[in-house]
Amino acid sequence: MKAVKKIVEAFAPATVANVGCGFDILGFAINGIGDRVKIKVTEQKGALISKITGTDKLPYEIEKNTAGMSILSMMQEINADFGVEIEIIKGMALGSGMGSSAASSVAAVVALNGVLEYPLDKSELLKYALKGEEVASGAMHGDNVIPSLFGGFTLIYNTTKFEFLSLDYPEELTCLVIHPNIQINTSFARGLLDKEIKIADVISQTGSLGRLITGLVSKKSELIRGSINDYIAEPKRASLIPNYWEIKKYALESGALGVNISGSGPSIFCLFDGEDNVIKIAENIKNLWIKAEIESQYYISKINQTGATVVYSE
Amino acid sequence: MKAVKKIVEAFAPATVANVGCGFDILGFAINGIGDRVKIKVTEQKGALISKITGTDKLPYEIEKNTAGMSILSMMQEINADFGVEIEIIKGMALGSGMGSSAASSVAAVVALNGVLEYPLDKSELLKYALKGEEVASGAMHGDNVIPSLFGGFTLIYNTTKFEFLSLDYPEELTCLVIHPNIQINTSFARGLLDKEIKIADVISQTGSLGRLITGLVSKKSELIRGSINDYIAEPKRASLIPNYWEIKKYALESGALGVNISGSGPSIFCLFDGEDNVIKIAENIKNLWIKAEIESQYYISKINQTGATVVYSE
Repeated sequence: MKAVKKIVEAFAPATVANVGCGFDILGFAINGIGDRVKIKVTEQKGALISKITGTDKLPYEIEKNTAGMSILSMMQEINADFGVEIEIIKGMALGSGMGSSAASSVAAVVALNGVLEYPLDKSELLKYALKGEEVASGAMHGDNVIPSLFGGFTLIYNTTKFEFLSLDYPEELTCLVIHPNIQINTSFARGLLDKEIKIADVISQTGSLGRLITGLVSKKSELIRGSINDYIAEPKRASLIPNYWEIKKYALESGALGVNISGSGPSIFCLFDGEDNVIKIAENIKNLWIKAEIESQYYISKINQTGATVVYSE
Repeated sequence: MKAVKKIVEAFAPATVANVGCGFDILGFAINGIGDRVKIKVTEQKGALISKITGTDKLPYEIEKNTAGMSILSMMQEINADFGVEIEIIKGMALGSGMGSSAASSVAAVVALNGVLEYPLDKSELLKYALKGEEVASGAMHGDNVIPSLFGGFTLIYNTTKFEFLSLDYPEELTCLVIHPNIQINTSFARGLLDKEIKIADVISQTGSLGRLITGLVSKKSELIRGSINDYIAEPKRASLIPNYWEIKKYALESGALGVNISGSGPSIFCLFDGEDNVIKIAENIKNLWIKAEIESQYYISKINQTGATVVYSE
């Protein structure tokens, strides 16, 4: 396939995966933070990473880089008759629990798609973005890639075939994500999990999930309250995050509908039924971590409805 | 508390519990089949079972009988200043998988409540009905008792505290329950289950549940299609039901939205998005079992919206 643009830059939002009881199956996109990838079309075939900003920890080797691998797999399959230079502009820390690798993969394929004579549908881009995510996390997980690509609050009801639904949700839903400057490797965090789950915990998990989905789809925030519980990952991973239980207790007592680990951490997300007091709560959590000599950044956002977009093209 | 009626009879509907991916947390009530309990007030205190029709397998000993135990626990707690004679009219087979013991317990407490000077709310009756269910199944399970008492399609999101929601569902939803004349003991069927579930199966179960709840609450039958999967109980219990997989395949190919084991079996339920062809499908399943020399009965019904009711009082 031919390229009809010279330069395209795309943005893909950060995401919150798992969402408590939705281990591996729920995720949503947020606003205000994400990664950008810029594609410059070259006459010489092949793909190379020309620049990475925002981190010095990502490899320039194309097949070890999530954005690079996504682009490579897509270029091969569409039989691209051109080459690309890739610039990756990281907008968030690696291993933050906000879908960092997914955002890079998604921005990469959306940017590449933007240069094409016959752009693919987003649904066709998914498999290439997943290829990149696989490089980062050792396996294909859709719960960051899918909301980053499509936006919204997504349920991946079949994680093998990556079949998903966009769920309705209460419009007032507001998310605080707060990221302490410590790093948790996704593969390591996954290794902490039990391979089998006690049936009583499965029943608790499904009960909570049922209530959460009911609250989302029927747009009743009060049903979301008390339903963001996790009996699988949170008990194993919480100890990796300093002051986790204290922060969770504080945010819930301050009115959060639910609090849990974002992805595999260390970021924590809190959902609220509006924006009142959220900045104050965020600042208090930040200050609590300062006392523990941990810096942090926070992001307050409605659910991002659009997902990844092209932000510049020429 | 005083009695102000002499005789009250109540009806409690049969129920389908588990509903595939909703193991222990989902259940709905059906029309046209259920148990009745008639309470006759006596001056002499205490409770005795005077008559049981529809089965010869239930004990007359009050503390070993589900209806008896429900009534006994309720009379003690409300400090009844009267006695009762209890007549149980079984409308369904024991161990059918249609919530037989739950229906008896529920009808019993609703009938007793009907004689009282100050009747309790249904929500206050729940704990007494659960006491009876405990006699039958060895543990308190709410997924038959709750829909039988309240009607509708219920999600027990906390199975320890018996906290539940009534879910919306598509009005056209039609249920076929077909009951082969073989008996499965609930405790035995529970013993077949693994105590721990592989995490991949948990993810499949939660994914299916998420889709099912979304389909119910958003009233989109097409989302229910393909979502009534069970990775916990069905694989272990299906072999107890003759021709189970063959029947399931046939019903799905004939248009059922979902097919699974009702409760712990042997009844099978099928959900449809209307009544077309359902009788024909039911007859074909019945004929298939006739070839295997198994008699069966079937019931076709919309979701019962009212739950247990008083049907006669004087």
